[in-house]
Amino acid sequence: MKVLRAKEKSFSQIKWLLTSTSKSWLEQALSNPIEVLIDHANCERKAAGVAIQMMFRYLSEPGLAEVLSPLAREELDHFEKVLEILKSKGRYLEPLAAPPYGALLTKNVRKEEPLRMLDSFLVAGLIEARSHERMSLLALHSLDKDIKDLYADLLESEARHFGVYWKLAEKRFEKSLILSRMKELAEIESNILSELYCQPRMHS
Amino acid sequence: MKVLRAKEKSFSQIKWLLTSTSKSWLEQALSNPIEVLIDHANCERKAAGVAIQMMFRYLSEPGLAEVLSPLAREELDHFEKVLEILKSKGRYLEPLAAPPYGALLTKNVRKEEPLRMLDSFLVAGLIEARSHERMSLLALHSLDKDIKDLYADLLESEARHFGVYWKLAEKRFEKSLILSRMKELAEIESNILSELYCQPRMHS
Ligand SMILES: [Fe+2]
Ligand SMILES: [Fe+2]
Ligand SMILES: [Fe+2]
Ligand SMILES: [Fe+2]
Repeated sequence: MKVLRAKEKSFSQIKWLLTSTSKSWLEQALSNPIEVLIDHANCERKAAGVAIQMMFRYLSEPGLAEVLSPLAREELDHFEKVLEILKSKGRYLEPLAAPPYGALLTKNVRKEEPLRMLDSFLVAGLIEARSHERMSLLALHSLDKDIKDLYADLLESEARHFGVYWKLAEKRFEKSLILSRMKELAEIESNILSELYCQPRMHS
Repeated sequence: MKVLRAKEKSFSQIKWLLTSTSKSWLEQALSNPIEVLIDHANCERKAAGVAIQMMFRYLSEPGLAEVLSPLAREELDHFEKVLEILKSKGRYLEPLAAPPYGALLTKNVRKEEPLRMLDSFLVAGLIEARSHERMSLLALHSLDKDIKDLYADLLESEARHFGVYWKLAEKRFEKSLILSRMKELAEIESNILSELYCQPRMHS
């Protein structure tokens, strides 16, 4: 494990994540690579769905659709890549029980605009950041070469997606407001993950 | 108008459309090219949303996500192209009142599976077919060269999208069942359009 830990540094973690993923999550994920892959496929299409939903909600907000539409396309492209690997392993998409992560985070999106918009960007960004961190771990430690390569291939975009949401926030809100809210949400995010969910998921 | 009518034949209409678009629609659309363009941008992202919704509803249906995910990506790509032209004309996306077309058509999707699935494919296919027909008209008759070229560029994909939904149906349902239902829905579709909607829309 020592060598692996050293190698982990080759992927830099997005600085807003308050805590690193636990060893127990990594063990759980590595013991159930296919289930995590199926869950990940579902996450990719959910990510596309969330971006499109935001495009509908803020239909005429200048500069938003211009970046969220390409992001949604990219998530769908990821989805297709995951599906391909899944099929090459003789498996297919399955409806898996979702861990509480997404719902618990989204509960913190405030109802009134423009705070709702700010929170939506930051929550989406945090999920991207966590996906990036966990895919980095899976890219390093997965035993199956195809799966390892797949995560290595996808993770850079997720870091970029974090940047997309961050810039959407930066262009519309005061820096101090963003920073204080990001700190709060990042703390909530880390707390949700402090207890490992019983089933192997990208965000268990 | 005689020459134009002859030229119209260069785009073949998808045979399932029961009636051709009226001259009054074309006049309404050509008199309001920007409003139709804004509406069309909204249609493209709705088309992406519909495909993704279907992917969630039939999450583990083999062969479905494989074709609907690329289709959704393509609709988003169209959306981005329309947005670009719109911006080059100094305009932007706007929330426009939707004509009754989509809602009235969707009301005919039966509630029980697998009929719901069949109807969803056929309704989505009919909308693609009608978009294809109307974009062909706009590609021929639009006065603005950018707009003309845009529609000419997009319309082939819409014919292909009709084919995607048609094949999804063909692989899962009996030919006679598809044909009789398609006839019913095509009649409903043509009836909805028999009265011109008061505002210029792609499906007014
Ligand atoms: Fe992704
Ligand atoms: Fe992403
Ligand atoms: Fe399209
Ligand atoms: Fe289409």
